[in-house]
Amino acid sequence: MRQITIIGTGLIGGSLALGLKRCGFHGRIVGCDRASVLERARNKGAIDQGETNPVSAVRGSQVVLLATPVGSIINLIELLGRGLSRHVLLTDVGSTKLEIVKRARATLGRTAGKRFLAGHPMAGKEQAGVDFAEGNLFEGATWFITPLAGQNIDEGLAGEFLSWVERLGAKIAALAPEKHDLLCAWVSHLPQMVSTALAASLVDQFGKDAPLLPAGGRALREMTRISASPYSMWRDIALTNKTNIRKALLQLEQRLAYIRENLDRRELEREFERAHELKKN
Amino acid sequence: MRQITIIGTGLIGGSLALGLKRCGFHGRIVGCDRASVLERARNKGAIDQGETNPVSAVRGSQVVLLATPVGSIINLIELLGRGLSRHVLLTDVGSTKLEIVKRARATLGRTAGKRFLAGHPMAGKEQAGVDFAEGNLFEGATWFITPLAGQNIDEGLAGEFLSWVERLGAKIAALAPEKHDLLCAWVSHLPQMVSTALAASLVDQFGKDAPLLPAGGRALREMTRISASPYSMWRDIALTNKTNIRKALLQLEQRLAYIRENLDRRELEREFERAHELKKN
Repeated sequence: MRQITIIGTGLIGGSLALGLKRCGFHGRIVGCDRASVLERARNKGAIDQGETNPVSAVRGSQVVLLATPVGSIINLIELLGRGLSRHVLLTDVGSTKLEIVKRARATLGRTAGKRFLAGHPMAGKEQAGVDFAEGNLFEGATWFITPLAGQNIDEGLAGEFLSWVERLGAKIAALAPEKHDLLCAWVSHLPQMVSTALAASLVDQFGKDAPLLPAGGRALREMTRISASPYSMWRDIALTNKTNIRKALLQLEQRLAYIRENLDRRELEREFERAHELKKN
Repeated sequence: MRQITIIGTGLIGGSLALGLKRCGFHGRIVGCDRASVLERARNKGAIDQGETNPVSAVRGSQVVLLATPVGSIINLIELLGRGLSRHVLLTDVGSTKLEIVKRARATLGRTAGKRFLAGHPMAGKEQAGVDFAEGNLFEGATWFITPLAGQNIDEGLAGEFLSWVERLGAKIAALAPEKHDLLCAWVSHLPQMVSTALAASLVDQFGKDAPLLPAGGRALREMTRISASPYSMWRDIALTNKTNIRKALLQLEQRLAYIRENLDRRELEREFERAHELKKN
């Protein structure tokens, strides 16, 4: 891996570029995004070269990382996949994995397991864009990998790329794409929708100028922090993980209704006790 | 205010005692709680004297602060109220205010506005008890006051007590008890029930030993932090603010259902946009 192309140099792509440089990657980093984003990524020292055209951007790279919203990742796999040399590793950081893996299999066929590595770092911020990128964003974060059937993630460029991921401080965890999407529906997508619903309800109830966060303190600040996340990213997550998110939302709605109906009964205690069982580390 | 009695020397009462000492209060602090709690409060330097009997604990104090769960505050107002000298200020830190104010009025009659000050600091932690008490817990927090009709909170012991509250770094905000309970249903009680429901649902879905928090990262940690809060405190909040919490829960349930039904539609964008309007400071 002497040169890596990062398509989408926003929060995640930009943080990965900064992290690689911080961890001693001496190869070349080519960024691909809109010109204005590339300029900021270059000014921040994240990329060595910027290209607005993905097809030009991948030239000469051994690894191509897709760091755009999920829908665009799927399109880029189709656009770039077949044109890339068999010796190039295509990898991604998309928040859902089943649709991405399906497209990789459909596009790359039997060679998919040697050429595509499906990944998803569980890191982020409520603010989008390269301006918020940080080289240490992945420290302590889980980096999910959903290997294709028979794929060996320890060998070749996949192994090399993942050794950089580990140097960034991330912990690699492999699981099937279906399991990944179910897990993330619960630990990431459901919390996002809840935070969005809570914030939107507060605005409806008290208006947008009410000083609610100072009144609510730390707990409210935490519960509504990710409500600031951009729709552009969440649209694709909702579209590609709809069934799982629906089920999780429905279960939570039912639980809230149960709590509502039992505010003055001992059943509420059992809800608190069940919640206390959540493992804290 | 040469001597203050704090009944309930847990997280809030203990933090207030530590804060007073840190801010230069040279008077005597008498704590009232179970003997084992008093011992820890004394070892921590929070109190000068411990009494297990509330009636003995209030002797010689100009200010009596009730820092127990709401149900117990209501009982203590009745137990202590009429016996206290007219020159003693009774104040509290209960999380709901209407029921407390009603009981103060019923017990103290026309003198209630001179003898009782209803307060509620918007500060806390998910961990209960004096072991987690900190003198700076109230720094930057809002300290709600719900004055009785015609009550002047700037004069006498109420004014003196509140000047200590300000020295602790809290910001005093006065509003009617009904408005307080409605606001807190939304900015505090609803978030608590949501966090509890989310954590309980995660345990139901994945079992209690699943390493969900490391996978979910900061957002999930924040969304479930207060789910560790003790039922003993929340039982009384749920009982004394049931109607408001019910309405807030129902509205949130309906909003989540709307999001669930619109995961693949542009209506989801409008939900994100509405949430983005929440004022962040």
